[in-house]
Amino acid sequence: MYDGIVQDLIDEFGRLPGIGPKSAQRIAFHILQSPSFDVSRLSTLLGEIRDKVKFCEICGNVSEQERCSICRDPRRNATLICVVEDAKDVAAIERTREFRGLYHVLGGAISPIAGIGPDDLRVTQLMQRLADGTVQEVILATNPNLEGEATATYLSRLLHTLEIRVTRLASGLPVGGDLEYADEVTLGRAFEGRRTL
Amino acid sequence: MYDGIVQDLIDEFGRLPGIGPKSAQRIAFHILQSPSFDVSRLSTLLGEIRDKVKFCEICGNVSEQERCSICRDPRRNATLICVVEDAKDVAAIERTREFRGLYHVLGGAISPIAGIGPDDLRVTQLMQRLADGTVQEVILATNPNLEGEATATYLSRLLHTLEIRVTRLASGLPVGGDLEYADEVTLGRAFEGRRTL
Repeated sequence: MYDGIVQDLIDEFGRLPGIGPKSAQRIAFHILQSPSFDVSRLSTLLGEIRDKVKFCEICGNVSEQERCSICRDPRRNATLICVVEDAKDVAAIERTREFRGLYHVLGGAISPIAGIGPDDLRVTQLMQRLADGTVQEVILATNPNLEGEATATYLSRLLHTLEIRVTRLASGLPVGGDLEYADEVTLGRAFEGRRTL
Repeated sequence: MYDGIVQDLIDEFGRLPGIGPKSAQRIAFHILQSPSFDVSRLSTLLGEIRDKVKFCEICGNVSEQERCSICRDPRRNATLICVVEDAKDVAAIERTREFRGLYHVLGGAISPIAGIGPDDLRVTQLMQRLADGTVQEVILATNPNLEGEATATYLSRLLHTLEIRVTRLASGLPVGGDLEYADEVTLGRAFEGRRTL
């Protein structure tokens, strides 16, 4: 609909997740017309991101160095590893400030439909990290959905051959949520996991 | 939450309209991890857009040349000018394929609250285009909201000094919409503008 580069830019933004044609148009015009937006900075960052950002050789988290800031931090509890599907999950858990151990990013979850098996995940690397006996507990923090549960079940069986405590994050009602609007599976889990007060 | 450039990129995307922190994170990771996404192309386009894209010297539409493709097209009806607030409105009207005249982009609408008066819009340029008597009708296609209506009223008074037909786009029920869900102002307009069948 537009001439040349404006349409090209709209098309490129439209290829990003969660951005439809209307949003892409709005973004392109914002970039074009808003003097306060630093377009050269965004352009530079995009040019650098794939070259500069690597994945931590230990845990698989995003990092600009060989080892990520969490694996490099001597104050983190090295006896505790939290296994997550994705680097975004590391960020989500870090925001809670509840966890002071280390992470292991699998890079996905087991999904027969998507053709992803254990060999496609960083499972071997996890087993290598556990080999020297430092780690005492592995928290399986894969997503509470079909693929995440399958992955947790698979890993839990694998880890039971080692002398390591294996735990899973609690399922239950979201804090601040409304019981009335909870789905039945979540509500069922909340009953199963009920605690004595 | 992330190290360096990943967080920088998330922050930059978060500055764009309609992109919240979660979306910005999702986009940054997509760019980082999806090999099919051509990041260098987006980076190049961003680097070029403000230099290459100009505004048509006649109508104010976006263009990579001095005059936009619509103003350059000899098949367009030069006796008809459609006045819009924004270049995005030109694209929206072009998509209907209903209009074969020319456009005039005001670059906004009159808004006392935002401190935008007629002098901040391309009103003088419009009057200059109408001076030679070629144009026979001006369609006021500003938005059907407070600012757009005020702008249409202002322009209509100004244009009544000339021998030119001045029209306004019809207000009424959206096609495919449901009468039950129409707001009362729209429904009122639909009654006012009812046609004999």
